[in-house]
Amino acid sequence: MKIIKKAILPKGFKANGSASGIKKSGKPDLALIYTDVPAIAAAQFTSNTVQAAPLKVNKLHLKKSRFFSAILANSGNANCFTGRQGFRDAVKSAAVLGRTLGIKQESVLVASTGIIGKRLPAGVIEKAVPGLVRGLSARGIDRAKKAIMTTDVFAKEATAVFDIGRVPVTVCGIAKGAGMISPRMATMLCFVMTDAVISPGALREALDKAVDGSFNCITVDGCMSTNDNVLLLANGAAGNPCIRTGAAGTPFSRALRSVCLELAMMMVKDGEGATKFIRITVRQARTEGEARQVALAIANSNLFKTAVYGENPNFGRIVAAAGASGIAVKEESLRVRLGPLNRRDIDVDVSLGRGRAGAAVYTSDLTPEYIKINAAYN
Amino acid sequence: MKIIKKAILPKGFKANGSASGIKKSGKPDLALIYTDVPAIAAAQFTSNTVQAAPLKVNKLHLKKSRFFSAILANSGNANCFTGRQGFRDAVKSAAVLGRTLGIKQESVLVASTGIIGKRLPAGVIEKAVPGLVRGLSARGIDRAKKAIMTTDVFAKEATAVFDIGRVPVTVCGIAKGAGMISPRMATMLCFVMTDAVISPGALREALDKAVDGSFNCITVDGCMSTNDNVLLLANGAAGNPCIRTGAAGTPFSRALRSVCLELAMMMVKDGEGATKFIRITVRQARTEGEARQVALAIANSNLFKTAVYGENPNFGRIVAAAGASGIAVKEESLRVRLGPLNRRDIDVDVSLGRGRAGAAVYTSDLTPEYIKINAAYN
Repeated sequence: MKIIKKAILPKGFKANGSASGIKKSGKPDLALIYTDVPAIAAAQFTSNTVQAAPLKVNKLHLKKSRFFSAILANSGNANCFTGRQGFRDAVKSAAVLGRTLGIKQESVLVASTGIIGKRLPAGVIEKAVPGLVRGLSARGIDRAKKAIMTTDVFAKEATAVFDIGRVPVTVCGIAKGAGMISPRMATMLCFVMTDAVISPGALREALDKAVDGSFNCITVDGCMSTNDNVLLLANGAAGNPCIRTGAAGTPFSRALRSVCLELAMMMVKDGEGATKFIRITVRQARTEGEARQVALAIANSNLFKTAVYGENPNFGRIVAAAGASGIAVKEESLRVRLGPLNRRDIDVDVSLGRGRAGAAVYTSDLTPEYIKINAAYN
Repeated sequence: MKIIKKAILPKGFKANGSASGIKKSGKPDLALIYTDVPAIAAAQFTSNTVQAAPLKVNKLHLKKSRFFSAILANSGNANCFTGRQGFRDAVKSAAVLGRTLGIKQESVLVASTGIIGKRLPAGVIEKAVPGLVRGLSARGIDRAKKAIMTTDVFAKEATAVFDIGRVPVTVCGIAKGAGMISPRMATMLCFVMTDAVISPGALREALDKAVDGSFNCITVDGCMSTNDNVLLLANGAAGNPCIRTGAAGTPFSRALRSVCLELAMMMVKDGEGATKFIRITVRQARTEGEARQVALAIANSNLFKTAVYGENPNFGRIVAAAGASGIAVKEESLRVRLGPLNRRDIDVDVSLGRGRAGAAVYTSDLTPEYIKINAAYN
C-alpha cells in the first residue's frame, strides 16, 4: 500500500476553499468538499460534554439522512458555547449551501474550529457560498486544506491508493490541529474521502478502529476540544466489489488507519511551538488500555515535556508520571529507556513488568513558543 | 485565631539548617527539627505508586514507634527510584542522627526532595549531622526552612497561636514546594510542630481534614511527586486539657487547617514562573468532590493557564476544560465569570447548575519562565 503525503481526491469528489472574512487576517477560512455521487458517511465526535453547534447539527443530519453530498467547514470561529443561536447559525449555513447546490440541507455536514463563545457570522458564510460552489474542482482540495487551518503551520494531508479485486480505490484525508490536542479527541477536524464501495457497517467499524489507532494515540497539551470531528464520506465511485462488515484487517481498513495515523503524526509534528517529536512506547502492561494510560500520563506531564525541550535527560520525571498514572506501577519492575535528546525525534521506552501488552503514544515537547502562541490567541 | 506568616516554634522544639554539600551550589540543603519532649506523630504521603525511600522509612518507623523526637530533611536529592540502596541510605541517615542525639533511630522521621534517580550521598549527611545537632536552637527554624527549598523563591512558614482552656497552644508549619505541585499531593514537604496535648486519633483526624482542605486544593502543573510528605509532631509541652477524637471544628483543628492552607497558598504564589495567583470556585455541583474535579480540570488546563498569563479573557478554554473534566457538565446550565486579568490575583467563578455543593482550588499561570526553570533543572 502506498501512502502519499498529499491530498489526491478520489473519483467523484471536488473541493474548494476561500477567504470569506470570518478571519480578520484575511486568510482562507471556508472549505467545501463535494461529491457528485451521494456518499454514505461515518463520523466520530469529541467526548467533551460541551459540544459545539456543528457537532449537534451533524448528529441530527446523520440520523435523518442516509446519503451525504457535502462538508462545509470554517476556521476562525468554533461556534461553540453559542447556545440555540449557534445551532441556528450552523443549520442556516447548511441550508444555504444545500439551496446553492440543489441538495437537501440534511445531506450537508458542517464543521467549525477557532475561538469558542463568539457567534458564527452566518451572513458572511452565506455571501461566500456561491463563489465557493462555482470554484469547485478536483484540485480545489489544496485550497480546502488551507482554509481549515488555525494555528497550524502546515496543512495536513495524506492519500492511500490500493486495489480491491483489481479495482483501484483511493482514501484521501485532510486535517487540522496543532494545539488543544488530546485523545478522545484533539482540537482537530479531519475529513476523509473515499470512492470505495462499502457497507455502512463496515465503514463505521473501519473508522472506529482507525481513530482509536491514530487520533486517540496523540496528545500535544492534554486539552480536549469541544469541536473535534472526524467525517468520512464513501461515494462508491470506484466500483470495487462491496466491502462488508467484519472488515478489520482488510486493505480498506489498513489504508484508512494509515491515512489517519499519518495525519495524526503530522498534527504532533505541527504541535504548537514543538521542537521535538516524541514517541512513548509502553510495554509489559496487562492490557493495551493500561499501556496507553501510562504512556498518556507521561505524554501529558509538563515536567517531562519541558525536560525534553531542554534536552535534559531527567528520567525521574518519567518515573513520577508513570507512578501517578492510576496504574499500580511498581518501582522494582519499572524499566525506562530514553534515547538521545539532541535530535528532532525522541524515543521513550517504558517496561512495566506487569504483562505482555503494549501501546505507543505520540506527543511533542512543551516550549516557550507554545505559551507565546496561546497567551495571545483569540 | 491569629495566623502569623512566620515560623515560631512551639515549646520544646528546636531546629537547625546547614549547607552539607548535597547541593553543588553550596546552598543550605540539610534541615533538622528536634523536640526535647518526645512527640506523637501523624503523617500523609503522596499517592504516587512510585514512592521515594524516605517515605518507606517513615511508614516503617510510624509502625514501629509511638514517639518521635526528630525530623531530618534534605534538599538537592529526592532519594527516589534508588532501589534498596536508597532505602539503606535513608535508614543510615536516621541511624546516624539517632546515635548523635542519643535516641532510637525509629524515633527519627526523614524527608528528601530534589532530583529523582540519583543516589543520596549518605556520607555527606553523616559528616554534617554533628554540627547540625550542636547548632539546634529555637530560632534555628529560620535556617531549617531555607534548607528544604529547591526551586522555591521564598520560604513558606506560618504559625497559629490560640488558647485551649486558657492555655496558649502553638501550631507552626514550614513547607517547600513550587513545581510538580498537584493534589494527592504536590512535590512538597511540610513539617508541622505543635505543643498541644492531643490523642493520636484526634491528631490523625485533624491532619487528614487539614490536608484535604489545603494541599489537596492546589495545583501548579498537575504533576504528582514521588516524595510528598506532611509530617506532624505534637509534643504536648503546652499542657492543655487533652484534645480527643471527634475534634473536627475544634480550635486545634481550625488552627491546623489555617496553617496548612496558608502554606499551600504560599506554594501556589511561589509556583514556578508564576505571575498570577488564580482562585477557581466551582458552585452548584452535586457534591464537593464533583466541584473540585471540575475546578482541578480547569486549573490543570495548559490552555487556560496560558491565557491567564497572556491576560487573554478566553473563557472558551474554561468551558472546554470543564466539559472534559469527566463530570457531565451541560452547556445550557454552565455559567462562567472571569474577573479582570490585569491583576496579580485572578478569580474564576463557575456555576454548574447541577446541585448545591461547591469547592475552591488554587493555581498559578503557565509562563515561559516555568519552562526555563524546568528545562534546565537537574
